[in-house]
Amino acid sequence: MKYNIAVGQSGGPTAAINATLCGVIEGALQSGNIDKILGCVNGIEGVLNENFADLSQLFASEEKRKLLKQTPAAFLGSCRKRLPQDLNDAEYKKIIDVLQKNNVKYFVYIGGNDSMDTVDKLSRYAKENNIDINFVGAPKTIDNDLAVTDFCPGFGSAAKYIATTVRELAIDAAVYSSKSVLIVEAMGRNAGWLTAASALARTEEFSAPHLIYVPERAFSIDKFIEDIKNVDSHSVVVVVSEGVKDENGTYICEGASSGVTDVFGHKMLSGTGKVLENIVRERLGVKVRSVELNTCQRCASHIRSEVDIQTSVQIGKEAALSAIEGKTGVMMYFERTGDSFKVKSQDISLIANEEKMLCDEFINKEGNNITDKFIEYVKPLIKGEAELICRDGMPVYIKL
Amino acid sequence: MKYNIAVGQSGGPTAAINATLCGVIEGALQSGNIDKILGCVNGIEGVLNENFADLSQLFASEEKRKLLKQTPAAFLGSCRKRLPQDLNDAEYKKIIDVLQKNNVKYFVYIGGNDSMDTVDKLSRYAKENNIDINFVGAPKTIDNDLAVTDFCPGFGSAAKYIATTVRELAIDAAVYSSKSVLIVEAMGRNAGWLTAASALARTEEFSAPHLIYVPERAFSIDKFIEDIKNVDSHSVVVVVSEGVKDENGTYICEGASSGVTDVFGHKMLSGTGKVLENIVRERLGVKVRSVELNTCQRCASHIRSEVDIQTSVQIGKEAALSAIEGKTGVMMYFERTGDSFKVKSQDISLIANEEKMLCDEFINKEGNNITDKFIEYVKPLIKGEAELICRDGMPVYIKL
Repeated sequence: MKYNIAVGQSGGPTAAINATLCGVIEGALQSGNIDKILGCVNGIEGVLNENFADLSQLFASEEKRKLLKQTPAAFLGSCRKRLPQDLNDAEYKKIIDVLQKNNVKYFVYIGGNDSMDTVDKLSRYAKENNIDINFVGAPKTIDNDLAVTDFCPGFGSAAKYIATTVRELAIDAAVYSSKSVLIVEAMGRNAGWLTAASALARTEEFSAPHLIYVPERAFSIDKFIEDIKNVDSHSVVVVVSEGVKDENGTYICEGASSGVTDVFGHKMLSGTGKVLENIVRERLGVKVRSVELNTCQRCASHIRSEVDIQTSVQIGKEAALSAIEGKTGVMMYFERTGDSFKVKSQDISLIANEEKMLCDEFINKEGNNITDKFIEYVKPLIKGEAELICRDGMPVYIKL
Repeated sequence: MKYNIAVGQSGGPTAAINATLCGVIEGALQSGNIDKILGCVNGIEGVLNENFADLSQLFASEEKRKLLKQTPAAFLGSCRKRLPQDLNDAEYKKIIDVLQKNNVKYFVYIGGNDSMDTVDKLSRYAKENNIDINFVGAPKTIDNDLAVTDFCPGFGSAAKYIATTVRELAIDAAVYSSKSVLIVEAMGRNAGWLTAASALARTEEFSAPHLIYVPERAFSIDKFIEDIKNVDSHSVVVVVSEGVKDENGTYICEGASSGVTDVFGHKMLSGTGKVLENIVRERLGVKVRSVELNTCQRCASHIRSEVDIQTSVQIGKEAALSAIEGKTGVMMYFERTGDSFKVKSQDISLIANEEKMLCDEFINKEGNNITDKFIEYVKPLIKGEAELICRDGMPVYIKL
């Protein structure tokens, strides 16, 4: 008897999360063991509401799968729902009932930290209650902050977008002969991976960005002003994480964020670049501009990394095949050998809720730049230009 | 005897201004009548400082010209210098002296409104003083606000970037099932061309952006809130020009701009999106985010319109050839027939200092959207994906 596989997407969008969804579809088709591929609309909420899309039908053709691969953000919709701590909560029984009613034996959840927590809980609930459904996690997050895996799908494309945009902004900023400062704010609440990736904008010809500040190091405004004074260029380019904090752990943008929090209680940040812009104008009296890259970082599908897309498809495929082969309570991850990557799996309880920061050897001593070791790490992840199918001068994206 | 041609770039950068520079070089090479092609470093300031780059040498190879064509912002550097009103000012004599000393008989200036004013003054000065130097203007501006010409080189690429980014941001914003508002702020101090171009993000499947506000119409905050309430989508996307003003002519961002002005006395605007974001949060209590596209709009060379690049090269070439053939005091411009464009020239005094606004038939009656007529106008300008030479996953850009 053939069973169904269900797949959901959760957390913040990326430019590669649909490539992983495509991989899950291709893995399920490839296995020959699957009846239907059910897409959970809005992640685990789609299960609770019994709202499924029949992906076997929708993506039977390779042409449609190609368009899925290049479409940004979660095709199935996303959610930010966190399951209850107490495994005896009725919500678990409801989820399992819906899955069993729909003949689902395999479940792949594509997401970040909070989503891996969902996979962890559901797989523990299933084991404790002798339920024969396999739960597997496929990572995605532009933040690149999941433990164990060498990198997270979605990060490479975001890194490529940030580096390209910073290179362009830096060239733009340097056209006038007068002294100026450009501050680019990148995403990263606690981890500086995206901000650090801006260093890829540098070449032998172009020295920008001159200064890079990540949340892993305490940020001093006095030191920042001194650093700018010491840059040997009429046009200084700084890239800073939204989440930089002073030595007391207070966010630099604290004043501007007015304490708004998301549903997980994370502080909603914005405005670090703007705060620093005003400080530079006041203290140095030079022309200064700040640019917040904002959500463009996670959805700029028009400039995806081919390596990111290929590996995102691959990890989705292996997640489906692993679930079908009997694995449960695991997250798929990448191991690097040289410039190539191999997909493996690991007990998800060792991964969920762990946040991976930039390691010390990736940040310079002064805390105002990154090291060559980081460049070596990130360079292979942005390689290659993913195919982009356009119509009338615009990328073709699809909708559920 | 062969003479030299000088070429300068001025005003704000675009993703196509170097394509026009490339056209000037190719026109000069093609004419067979030119000794050297002198690039003025930082526009007219480069003439005053006798700071020239030998472009004939730098761009002898087609390979180098290809890289020039894809490099954003002004390769030669830019300036925001406005020449004195009084043609008897010593600065005019100085400019002419330097040009004559360097054997320059032809001068092409690539720029926007303020730059065309420079060409106008220099050509009038030359005529009045019987000086045999021909001054020709080649337009560029992402703002698309120059008179006479059907469109301005640089606008098509900026329009393509904005429409693509808005499509991506809209897909990103719609992933959660909860009600939300996304406000995207586009450039445009007085003219709404760039903001209007965001309508190209729409397809049969995607209805965003739902509301578009341009500076040509008075902006009412109450009406804006009502408009949002009336949108039939859980995820409302609004695109607004930085320069929208209320019925009294006060900028919506007035509070936030704190009266900083640029060297021409234009108010430096920013924060319209942020101001509206706070108003929506307060009045509607829904999730809201604002994204300021900022200078990315004018330098996103990684996604240029092929039509924009081809026509930008063409107009540069014809500008050089026109100057060599004896024209002076003219700006080159585009005339449209169907979907094709022809380069012509026009007396520059009829163009300089005129600002072309969106015409009435391009804006809907309610003033919260654009019309199909505008889509017909803008669609041909974003067509085709310009070639992008990359190395190690990053676009290759060059530096003087």
